[in-house]
Amino acid sequence: MHIFQEIRPLKAFLEQIRKGSGTIGFVPTMGALHPGHISLIQASQKDNHKTICSIYVNPAQFNNAADLAKYPRTLERDLELLRQQGCDAVFCPSNAEMYATDSILKFDFGYLNTEMEGRYRPGHFSGVALVVSKLFNIVQPDVAYFGQKDFQQFKIIERLVSELKFEIALKCMPIVRESDGLAMSSRNARLSKENRTKAAQLYQALLFAKEGLSKNKSMADIRSQVESQFNSVGGIQLEYLELVDSTNLLPLENVGDKSILLIAAYVGEVRLIDNLLLT
Amino acid sequence: MHIFQEIRPLKAFLEQIRKGSGTIGFVPTMGALHPGHISLIQASQKDNHKTICSIYVNPAQFNNAADLAKYPRTLERDLELLRQQGCDAVFCPSNAEMYATDSILKFDFGYLNTEMEGRYRPGHFSGVALVVSKLFNIVQPDVAYFGQKDFQQFKIIERLVSELKFEIALKCMPIVRESDGLAMSSRNARLSKENRTKAAQLYQALLFAKEGLSKNKSMADIRSQVESQFNSVGGIQLEYLELVDSTNLLPLENVGDKSILLIAAYVGEVRLIDNLLLT
Repeated sequence: MHIFQEIRPLKAFLEQIRKGSGTIGFVPTMGALHPGHISLIQASQKDNHKTICSIYVNPAQFNNAADLAKYPRTLERDLELLRQQGCDAVFCPSNAEMYATDSILKFDFGYLNTEMEGRYRPGHFSGVALVVSKLFNIVQPDVAYFGQKDFQQFKIIERLVSELKFEIALKCMPIVRESDGLAMSSRNARLSKENRTKAAQLYQALLFAKEGLSKNKSMADIRSQVESQFNSVGGIQLEYLELVDSTNLLPLENVGDKSILLIAAYVGEVRLIDNLLLT
Repeated sequence: MHIFQEIRPLKAFLEQIRKGSGTIGFVPTMGALHPGHISLIQASQKDNHKTICSIYVNPAQFNNAADLAKYPRTLERDLELLRQQGCDAVFCPSNAEMYATDSILKFDFGYLNTEMEGRYRPGHFSGVALVVSKLFNIVQPDVAYFGQKDFQQFKIIERLVSELKFEIALKCMPIVRESDGLAMSSRNARLSKENRTKAAQLYQALLFAKEGLSKNKSMADIRSQVESQFNSVGGIQLEYLELVDSTNLLPLENVGDKSILLIAAYVGEVRLIDNLLLT
């Protein structure tokens, strides 16, 4: 497995693949890899001649310095996992390599970044769009793979690709869950044992909401019942629970053709998100 | 000369050039070509195997609907000029081709887009960055050529390329002037005969400012003298006259290593800009 910390040798490597008419699949990550990431690597390997994974904790997408400092970093273990998986190359650049100049550029995606994650994490999606643009221009993949867990992020990247006319196909891969339903996330590693058990409540809330909607309950009622449930468990703070159209993220009153439920909550000091497509 | 109105056949054409290891020079324009544009085509032809020119009046960079409506459009004449010049290909897409989806994405370059043109044309540079990003991803040139007349635009594009890590070299080519010093611009075609004569006052003001600065006059004094001169000629309305650092566009009190004077004024109903590097 080739490991690149600098852009130039990575580009030379990729250029050789392209000259051989091979397709390049790309899995951008922030490391602390778990089976959700591995499912993206496997999807890319199935579709492409070569698979490149990037591991980079992008400071520009953290609106909270403590969250950035505490974000799990397990590079040696990540590289070993990718090696075992047969990943062809890993790009793990330094901040200096990714941000050679101080950054002043901000992106605004209108309603796509004002609600849900955008409301609670101001500037987050601008930082995501910036680093994804950088990575797309460096790697120039044929296909890029993202997890459905970060669904709003996927919609932002979809919009970035369509507006900037990147010639990159995007794939949104299903959420991989623990046996109790908790969506796999690098941040789960930061949960205490007790909070790890409580964290399954997010998925339970999504199932409860789906069930309630099928019985014509209103989102307001569902939300208040979920908050009661979280309070009775204790130590879980709901940020949002929304029913939106999965094509444009606009809020819905009732389940439609392409609806999705999205949730964010603090479990102890760890902020978790999850979602459920209703199709 | 190949003429493309659609992205797909243009990309296929460019792919063949790249496979032959030829370099691609790119000159993005809004048409109504004049000798300033032709100098960019010539510079590209000197440096590259193939030269592509785009002609597209980008609605997203017009903050003023009347300015967009009145912008000169001379496509047949432009194509003839490019043919005579030996340009290899022209890309002249429709709005539908460039904006397949409605656009919600905005760019913000901080202080680079809050002053001068940014102050008088809100949203202008966001539209420029959007269309240039699209064109760069479509054409993927080795080198792109821009005129120094739009100096602030060049700084924005320089920043876009460095922050998004486009692998494109940028060249800023000198202003081409009429015999009386007026900077060549597509908008000059909209000047009445009388205003065409008055328009030379912009360049005169830049020379006057340069002279004044060399005699330690303040920019405030120079600005007020230029305004008096414009008033005495009549029909010229100064928007700004600024001395800034050409590397970061921050205002200067005195001429330094890399200073530039920039001016914008209405001559009748036509808004003109010009600048002068002081080195």
